[in-house]
Amino acid sequence: MAEAVITVDGWSALHDTRTFDWTSWKLTSQEEREAAVNEFKEIITKWEAVEEAKEGSHALYKVVGNKADLMFVFLRPTMDELEEIKTEINKSKIGDFLIPGYSYVSIIEMTMHNPMDEGKDRELSPYVKDRLRPIMPKWEHACFYPMARRRWSDANWFEIDKEERTKLLYDHGMTGRKYAGKVKEIITGSIGLDEWEWGVTLFAHDPLQFKKIVYEMRFDEVTTKYAEFGDFIVGNYLPKENVDAYFTL
Amino acid sequence: MAEAVITVDGWSALHDTRTFDWTSWKLTSQEEREAAVNEFKEIITKWEAVEEAKEGSHALYKVVGNKADLMFVFLRPTMDELEEIKTEINKSKIGDFLIPGYSYVSIIEMTMHNPMDEGKDRELSPYVKDRLRPIMPKWEHACFYPMARRRWSDANWFEIDKEERTKLLYDHGMTGRKYAGKVKEIITGSIGLDEWEWGVTLFAHDPLQFKKIVYEMRFDEVTTKYAEFGDFIVGNYLPKENVDAYFTL
Amino acid sequence: MAEAVITVDGWSALHDTRTFDWTSWKLTSQEEREAAVNEFKEIITKWEAVEEAKEGSHALYKVVGNKADLMFVFLRPTMDELEEIKTEINKSKIGDFLIPGYSYVSIIEMTMHNPMDEGKDRELSPYVKDRLRPIMPKWEHACFYPMARRRWSDANWFEIDKEERTKLLYDHGMTGRKYAGKVKEIITGSIGLDEWEWGVTLFAHDPLQFKKIVYEMRFDEVTTKYAEFGDFIVGNYLPKENVDAYFTL
Amino acid sequence: MAEAVITVDGWSALHDTRTFDWTSWKLTSQEEREAAVNEFKEIITKWEAVEEAKEGSHALYKVVGNKADLMFVFLRPTMDELEEIKTEINKSKIGDFLIPGYSYVSIIEMTMHNPMDEGKDRELSPYVKDRLRPIMPKWEHACFYPMARRRWSDANWFEIDKEERTKLLYDHGMTGRKYAGKVKEIITGSIGLDEWEWGVTLFAHDPLQFKKIVYEMRFDEVTTKYAEFGDFIVGNYLPKENVDAYFTL
Amino acid sequence: MAEAVITVDGWSALHDTRTFDWTSWKLTSQEEREAAVNEFKEIITKWEAVEEAKEGSHALYKVVGNKADLMFVFLRPTMDELEEIKTEINKSKIGDFLIPGYSYVSIIEMTMHNPMDEGKDRELSPYVKDRLRPIMPKWEHACFYPMARRRWSDANWFEIDKEERTKLLYDHGMTGRKYAGKVKEIITGSIGLDEWEWGVTLFAHDPLQFKKIVYEMRFDEVTTKYAEFGDFIVGNYLPKENVDAYFTL
Repeated sequence: MAEAVITVDGWSALHDTRTFDWTSWKLTSQEEREAAVNEFKEIITKWEAVEEAKEGSHALYKVVGNKADLMFVFLRPTMDELEEIKTEINKSKIGDFLIPGYSYVSIIEMTMHNPMDEGKDRELSPYVKDRLRPIMPKWEHACFYPMARRRWSDANWFEIDKEERTKLLYDHGMTGRKYAGKVKEIITGSIGLDEWEWGVTLFAHDPLQFKKIVYEMRFDEVTTKYAEFGDFIVGNYLPKENVDAYFTL
Repeated sequence: MAEAVITVDGWSALHDTRTFDWTSWKLTSQEEREAAVNEFKEIITKWEAVEEAKEGSHALYKVVGNKADLMFVFLRPTMDELEEIKTEINKSKIGDFLIPGYSYVSIIEMTMHNPMDEGKDRELSPYVKDRLRPIMPKWEHACFYPMARRRWSDANWFEIDKEERTKLLYDHGMTGRKYAGKVKEIITGSIGLDEWEWGVTLFAHDPLQFKKIVYEMRFDEVTTKYAEFGDFIVGNYLPKENVDAYFTL
Repeated sequence: MAEAVITVDGWSALHDTRTFDWTSWKLTSQEEREAAVNEFKEIITKWEAVEEAKEGSHALYKVVGNKADLMFVFLRPTMDELEEIKTEINKSKIGDFLIPGYSYVSIIEMTMHNPMDEGKDRELSPYVKDRLRPIMPKWEHACFYPMARRRWSDANWFEIDKEERTKLLYDHGMTGRKYAGKVKEIITGSIGLDEWEWGVTLFAHDPLQFKKIVYEMRFDEVTTKYAEFGDFIVGNYLPKENVDAYFTL
Repeated sequence: MAEAVITVDGWSALHDTRTFDWTSWKLTSQEEREAAVNEFKEIITKWEAVEEAKEGSHALYKVVGNKADLMFVFLRPTMDELEEIKTEINKSKIGDFLIPGYSYVSIIEMTMHNPMDEGKDRELSPYVKDRLRPIMPKWEHACFYPMARRRWSDANWFEIDKEERTKLLYDHGMTGRKYAGKVKEIITGSIGLDEWEWGVTLFAHDPLQFKKIVYEMRFDEVTTKYAEFGDFIVGNYLPKENVDAYFTL
Repeated sequence: MAEAVITVDGWSALHDTRTFDWTSWKLTSQEEREAAVNEFKEIITKWEAVEEAKEGSHALYKVVGNKADLMFVFLRPTMDELEEIKTEINKSKIGDFLIPGYSYVSIIEMTMHNPMDEGKDRELSPYVKDRLRPIMPKWEHACFYPMARRRWSDANWFEIDKEERTKLLYDHGMTGRKYAGKVKEIITGSIGLDEWEWGVTLFAHDPLQFKKIVYEMRFDEVTTKYAEFGDFIVGNYLPKENVDAYFTL
């Protein structure tokens, strides 16, 4: 039996995509549309205050392609807050036009086999705190995908030695380091919360970097042999000041 | 041919998730909404009486993420009651807004290879009765997932010796014991009732414990080699006294 | 090349689940609802006459859980009749509220390797006729699931010797015999008619018996090594005299 | 690298299933319904003229079970015509009630390893022309299913020798010959056009023959080892003279 | 660990299929329909100006079969433009009738192991520029499908030597060359952007060529052993001058 690894856990996370019901939106009067957008911006303002106070973080993306129109990402200390945020959106006026799509619930985690942290007193260092309770970079593009590790008879991630897993993840981390300054990432764990085991949220100024890093990593042994991937969602950052324009017909 | 294990069976169970149709709800007059919520609370009151009389148990959860909005869990002596409860909800006013999502039918079971029960006269002991006809703890969070055991050519749970199965489940149980006081669980069997074979319902005060226990258990040989998992649903407990607030716009 | 087995074929079968649109039903006037239910009962009366004449059989179940609300099972000499029944339901008033769910088309079959029939002149005996053109027992509960036999490289049902298949099915039949009086079954074949190869319809007074028999059979080598299963649907028998109550709001 | 086989290609084919929206149909006035059916019959009359001129073929089936209500099969010299037919149906009045279901695009093909054609000058013979541009038999029942050949590491159809493939298909053809007069078939190829690789359309007077032939063929080595199957759709032929009755409430 | 290959990347691409809601379209007045089509043609005119300036390319296809009615393909320098195009369509009048179907986001790429480019200074040559920022040929037919390379234990594309991969792709390219003049192709990469890894867009005057080339390539070792395919969509080119006719009832 392989030894489990201790994880340090941070904020809870919700990735939530929505298709916007433009047909119904057009049937709504301009007054009602303005009221809906204003109310929505007030909700965003509340989220901004939470972020300001370092009690959470959020970001909104315009999804590229027709899998969805918008992707919300929320980080909060508790699952209660994540549920309240979702319900507040749904109760709001704009919520009537936001048809639910993909949903993913997870918790930010760092593991002892992350080579970047070796030798650090992770629980306490400000570096670790920042990684467990991160303010998301408001970079122009984001990419999200969930993944799992194989439990195949001849390639079972959960059966191999802890040392082997650490080495494979170290090599993987080395690939990631080449993209320092170009790609930031947040890793969340979802075993016990979702059918996928981990979620990867990437941020970049140039979305080509998503393709480059994930392509290069596909040749890492930890990916080649052990990784399975779910849907990929790519979005362009939508700042609050552009919300009006986005919903204007 | 491996020997089947005797199971002791208890109450029937229904896990039923719903998406709430907030858009239609907003189009409904406040009077009608109040009438719907009041009628729903009366139905809950009937369920409470059943629970009081130890003739069943129920719980309602606000689902985290957009897979659904609400999850009902019902335990009853018969499948007839489970069907009647579902139909009563659907015939009720609030039922018009509760779009069916995931549905899972099963029966609470204990098996002889549960190491915690060895040496006990299970059929008769009050301990066993309580486990077969449990009143669900009204803890803050619940997690549900269905699972199956692999029947692969080189990893076939139903082909290995009863002793081997017992040993693997014993080790698994040892992992679970570490979470005593933090996580409670109800195991239900659904072979012959659902395409998944077992359902796991976990209860915790802190939802991080769902991640910790399921993560640690993923390294147990019984999981690593033999387990397949379905969807995971995480919810926050919704007590009757908060039902009004939940549905208030 | 393994030798195919001769099958004897009986009535055609349709398993058809529906979700009832309670929301629209409530928007319908009581008069219209009564008219719809009365018309539906007249259709059932026609089916009863067919059953009386031993020219077919039918049963209606209230589905447990939210996969569906109702399951119809029809047995008829021809596929033409099955299509006509479906279309008659859809053209009827109640049909407006019956949203199609799962659908499975098959033909009742007996095979030479059914050990219970060895030594009988099956084509002609009244016993065989009754099994090929059965009147379904109106027991309190039914369970339906489709299945297929694996064609894996190292476990290929269609490649093993006829003798081996016969032996495995004989053992399987022995497990089934233990449930005589508790569980009745109808086996239908659907190779060439559906993506699943066989359908199993079980009847019981106590639905726990579905779990017990299918659990025990999961340890039979024919299941352990060769069986794949589709959705399971469990229903409670709805006799015509309870149809009014079922649809009453 | 295994040698590819030359195929001779004929008409393009569209298999298109639809669910009929009876609920909306009933809300339509009798006048409008009659107008819709009359227009539909005029469209059929145009198709009949095409068939008469041997410039295509078509058939309409009432689907057994609730996977769909109607299945159209069209054969035409070009993909342009197939798209035009679909769009003409959708623009027609009856099209408002025909909800798209399963769709499959392919091209009729004969391959050199069809043993029935060996020694014939296939490109030119009237026999080959008739098979590549067939008028579909208006038999009482049809069955359609798509399939693919496995590319597994230890069972890869596209890796085995051409001689082996020819032999396996010859044996398969021998099984098919036993059903001469009972079952007719049209084979269409869809590599490059659909995720399934071939489509099989069977015609019979007795639908039991679909079960018999596909069951017997499942024991052919080419099927046992190399075949994967998609959905099966079974329909009863709907001649133009019965179209009125079909749509009459 | 196998060595990753350097790719040169070009324009971003969006493949977007839509089902046209003919039922609602017919309920719209002729005036409104004309306004919607005229606005749509103005949008196309803007796209044409972009193509004229070699700052992007686009094409619109009528989909054969009922998987969808229309397929848009857009090539643009940035993901921002792709998102803006989608949103402009959705905000337009015709957008109300264009129900989203399949969506695929990718970036045009050339890899060093493309044998056709060996010895060329690819980054700079006009040939490479034309392939990375191509104007799509307005041929009569297009075919799109996404694909991935297997990461199986005994057939793992990302584990084999770079030389082996280069050789296999060279052989594959040789098959493709036979179709010069008959089939053009654009290869896009989507690792990090979509669950499929590459997208293939083919253009032909005769759609039979899609079947011939993909069939022949299925025998290439790189396909036989390592390729998995997603949905295939086949369309007939819809030039702007035929847009009026297409939408006319």
